[in-house]
Amino acid sequence: MSLVVVGSVAYDAVETPHGRVDRMLGGSCTYIGLAASFFTKVAVVGVVGDDFAREDVDLLASREIDLEGLERVPGKTFFWAGVYSEDMNDRTTLQTDLNVFADFNPKLPASYRDRPYLVLGNIQPALQRAVRSQMNGVRITGGDTMNYWIRDYRDELLETIRDWDFLLINDSEARMLSGLHNLRRAANAILDMGPNTLVIKRGEYGALLFRRDSHFMVPGYLLEEIFDPTGAGDCFAGGFIGYLAECGCDLREGKVDRRELGRAVIYGSVMGSFCCEKFGVDRFRTLTRDDIEQRFREFRDFTEF
Amino acid sequence: MSLVVVGSVAYDAVETPHGRVDRMLGGSCTYIGLAASFFTKVAVVGVVGDDFAREDVDLLASREIDLEGLERVPGKTFFWAGVYSEDMNDRTTLQTDLNVFADFNPKLPASYRDRPYLVLGNIQPALQRAVRSQMNGVRITGGDTMNYWIRDYRDELLETIRDWDFLLINDSEARMLSGLHNLRRAANAILDMGPNTLVIKRGEYGALLFRRDSHFMVPGYLLEEIFDPTGAGDCFAGGFIGYLAECGCDLREGKVDRRELGRAVIYGSVMGSFCCEKFGVDRFRTLTRDDIEQRFREFRDFTEF
Repeated sequence: MSLVVVGSVAYDAVETPHGRVDRMLGGSCTYIGLAASFFTKVAVVGVVGDDFAREDVDLLASREIDLEGLERVPGKTFFWAGVYSEDMNDRTTLQTDLNVFADFNPKLPASYRDRPYLVLGNIQPALQRAVRSQMNGVRITGGDTMNYWIRDYRDELLETIRDWDFLLINDSEARMLSGLHNLRRAANAILDMGPNTLVIKRGEYGALLFRRDSHFMVPGYLLEEIFDPTGAGDCFAGGFIGYLAECGCDLREGKVDRRELGRAVIYGSVMGSFCCEKFGVDRFRTLTRDDIEQRFREFRDFTEF
Repeated sequence: MSLVVVGSVAYDAVETPHGRVDRMLGGSCTYIGLAASFFTKVAVVGVVGDDFAREDVDLLASREIDLEGLERVPGKTFFWAGVYSEDMNDRTTLQTDLNVFADFNPKLPASYRDRPYLVLGNIQPALQRAVRSQMNGVRITGGDTMNYWIRDYRDELLETIRDWDFLLINDSEARMLSGLHNLRRAANAILDMGPNTLVIKRGEYGALLFRRDSHFMVPGYLLEEIFDPTGAGDCFAGGFIGYLAECGCDLREGKVDRRELGRAVIYGSVMGSFCCEKFGVDRFRTLTRDDIEQRFREFRDFTEF
């Protein structure tokens, strides 16, 4: 079943211990959309400037992503520059130029409005809510947020996620949102805020999925070489929701299979791990579904007992 | 099959956010021995002072631990005091009085020498080697070490672990020993040093097991309340080797079942998680094998997909 992805489309400059790239395609919408496109039909909503390159449009189109909702306006595309620490567990932002993204006001093309799955990348909570209200009875909604919205836009954020089926954040965000350090308690508090499913990403340590009556845990894939972790969390989201959309999974109580949810977390982990193998979105230029299935089997091999 | 455990027997003073205990039974030999005793016959080698309490002897004896190798000498038992940080991920040592442990020179009773399994808690590498040389053709040897021996006694440590079947350390120790940050590469370098099996403990993030041809990963058990993490790593070791001894597992190439090794890591994780539920060794006073099996099944439930 098809999926609408809303978020940023950007150019990034990134420096890691393995090298540096001055300008590469990025943004949450891009990463989520590309990762999800290996599982299901994807339609994106975003905004780019008139500097947005033909080859980047072509890459998205090559994955059969519906670009009707990708608005092009005068000005420059969102630009972000950052540098990673030696062990790549920390990064420092060097530059953030919102450019055309500053006035982003997502408008859903009519052809998108009846699609059953909606995933909202990390943008202002009020915009996330506005997008959802443009859909006609969307079946599953979920998305991401960040420390900035949790701290300074808390009420708006709570109003937004109240209507979501799943929330996908990292462990420090889960602690901040709940005010609790213990993840099991933090998860219970967040499930009280609306979503029936909470996924906590832990970077190299894997991911957790919580529901009222069960949880699922997976360790992180051990890469021999992490080239560039930019976008890995968004690729996780893309693999997770992409797989749910592919198998038409519902998340409502009594309608969901815990094993199916576990597999969605594994596909998320698989896509996040591939993302780190090359700079930016480069790994997705050559990736195949066979590669994905092979890594999925690897996850089974090293976790089964 | 029976297991010989060598290491420290101590009194600890511990402060965590949940409270403080001024004097409680501790030490690597104690924790490893108690945890392993739920799986197999255990015989310990250690030294205590004349202040060692009858009730602590009784606790070890109640688990049917062979105490012939527990030497009692004039003086005070090894004493350690420490305080944990708010999130319990760090601890600060306040006091270390080696006392009778300063002259510890482990001597194996004749009745221990033909036992097939030997696990060496974190003590000086030369002593670890000396213990092994007192055994008659021990089948499986392994143990723990720490940053101090890795940094200041490197040659001695390398000579010692060359003869071991398994090494059980934490992630920062693995990085220090190998000089490599990436854990997959660090593991390969350590497997070149002698042991055919490397277990890396990652605290709340679980554990990894590496062999030449495979690896196994498990996430950490999510406790709602961590009372006191003291001894959790040693209890992991006890559960791991205890289970291997119980099922008579060999670790040599071609003789081992990867699934069996995975289960040993799970039992290690189970015992480490129980250890954190109360101060010191208190959880082991009431723990049953049924409790252990129930938590083992929980691990299966939240990792299967």
